[in-house]
Amino acid sequence: MALSMKEIGSFHIGGGPVTLSGLPPRQLVLTQGMGVRAFPQDGDFETGQMYAQYIRLQAPRAKYPLLMWHGGGMTGTTWETKPDGGAGWQSWFLHAGHDVFVSDAVERGRAGWSRFPEVYPDEPHFRSKQEAWSLFRLGPPGSYATRTGHPDGQFPLDRFDQFAKQIVPRWSCNDARTQAAYDALVRTVGPSVVMTHSQSGAFGFAAALHAPDLVRAVVTIEPSGAPDPDAVDVSVVRSVPHLLVLGDHISEDPFWQAIVMRVRRYFDALRAAGGTADLLDLPTLGVRGSSHFPMMDRNSDQVAGLVQEWMQRLGLVR
Amino acid sequence: MALSMKEIGSFHIGGGPVTLSGLPPRQLVLTQGMGVRAFPQDGDFETGQMYAQYIRLQAPRAKYPLLMWHGGGMTGTTWETKPDGGAGWQSWFLHAGHDVFVSDAVERGRAGWSRFPEVYPDEPHFRSKQEAWSLFRLGPPGSYATRTGHPDGQFPLDRFDQFAKQIVPRWSCNDARTQAAYDALVRTVGPSVVMTHSQSGAFGFAAALHAPDLVRAVVTIEPSGAPDPDAVDVSVVRSVPHLLVLGDHISEDPFWQAIVMRVRRYFDALRAAGGTADLLDLPTLGVRGSSHFPMMDRNSDQVAGLVQEWMQRLGLVR
Repeated sequence: MALSMKEIGSFHIGGGPVTLSGLPPRQLVLTQGMGVRAFPQDGDFETGQMYAQYIRLQAPRAKYPLLMWHGGGMTGTTWETKPDGGAGWQSWFLHAGHDVFVSDAVERGRAGWSRFPEVYPDEPHFRSKQEAWSLFRLGPPGSYATRTGHPDGQFPLDRFDQFAKQIVPRWSCNDARTQAAYDALVRTVGPSVVMTHSQSGAFGFAAALHAPDLVRAVVTIEPSGAPDPDAVDVSVVRSVPHLLVLGDHISEDPFWQAIVMRVRRYFDALRAAGGTADLLDLPTLGVRGSSHFPMMDRNSDQVAGLVQEWMQRLGLVR
Repeated sequence: MALSMKEIGSFHIGGGPVTLSGLPPRQLVLTQGMGVRAFPQDGDFETGQMYAQYIRLQAPRAKYPLLMWHGGGMTGTTWETKPDGGAGWQSWFLHAGHDVFVSDAVERGRAGWSRFPEVYPDEPHFRSKQEAWSLFRLGPPGSYATRTGHPDGQFPLDRFDQFAKQIVPRWSCNDARTQAAYDALVRTVGPSVVMTHSQSGAFGFAAALHAPDLVRAVVTIEPSGAPDPDAVDVSVVRSVPHLLVLGDHISEDPFWQAIVMRVRRYFDALRAAGGTADLLDLPTLGVRGSSHFPMMDRNSDQVAGLVQEWMQRLGLVR
């Protein structure tokens, strides 16, 4: 089905200048056939920016643009075509009437990254396939070696290597830079719905607390963190509905159980403050085998439909 | 003007697995609130892939998709919205009837990058604003300090810092990996027109030599390299029309003069072999002040129009 698109565009937002000095120049061949030349490593640079690409529809049915924020070690490709070649959530939510902004956070993808240890204090972490397999609950413990998944698993395991091509290096020292850029993105776009995945869950909750007048709803897919309700004033986001989406096989995974317990505590506090904090626990609803990446699972359309229903119920889609 | 879009999607292509061992684990906080944990650095990874995003129109007028390849230290954002906020060439060529593929080469943007020196033998180069200003011919020698451009310059200098946010680290050791991925992209997409900028010029010329049945034309914007016509059989691409686009102020820049001389030598050999090798020398045509990034200059629509005319003349656009 054709989409009538009003505009496609992109921009970098956030960050600022940094100047480096005292670094030795390097002898490099940067231009084929032009020989070795000396390149100063000192100079002025930009750092701390993020990247966002937007597609605006000719006739959106959603009241606000949908900002899609990826998780740790990933980029905006999380939301694009699935590793199995099927249409992803960027495409799904466009067809469902939303203007979409798919972004790359600070240090990831088209956002670029900065020299370490001179700008970023630490070196990056390179996530292995072993770590991804286990962290993303693609199979029982120890199943990476045989690539045997959960019997009911929805993730396309025959495309796991294709998925692994999407993984990019990540740092553990850039949370403040990343939050600042996301906050700047929200201020630039204006009233919007924030959809987060995994690591960006914490950034999305904080973005709503920082700009409750602009973040009109938070849809959080398996967030890996949430604010401590004793450390923030949750009443600030009383009028910002939150939806938590959880996949399957969490009850067999102590790491994810601990995370979910913390997120549920935040949601309980939201409800206690008079807010809307709903739960889409997929296995409880009879949707079995969802991985940590429901937007890449074989039944991604089904899960997207449940999220869309919630947005419709709240009047966020006309 | 609305665009009727048939499909938006993306994929990673090329590369393959690599296994690392013997690296010490690191103690990291990768999940807010979950404390320090040990992360093995050994394991299986993917390396050498590139990223491409495509937009297919409901009714393209161009015979073949347009593959847009960025230059050194840049990503696919080269072709998207300009630093001054105006529509870039991705949007322009979509409106002109082309299906477009905007890609990030190996090591850049959403393609991801690999550990060094374990996978990439060398460390990256971080291009400073000083280097970019000079290399991209934004002003006379020494003009960075005052940000004074050429009097006739078309680059939006008041947005130079915004432009600098697009710059990403680059290596000088990945030419073979990058070429292999571009060749794989061409084989996957099939018959297509390749549009290159700067560093990717050399990759585009080689892609045509490697697959003259698939690369139906090469549009090369200020390529920074070209094959030595004595080292390749140029007759292979006799039926692949080539267009060279050159900006302004090259005659005042010995570095770019040397590059252009080598590119012209390749174009002369193409013509001598009976091929089509045309030149769009912008200042000669009365289009003054073009920078190394004509797709970001204020008059980017005008230059795009000249490229489109050439494609129409060759029957590449209906």
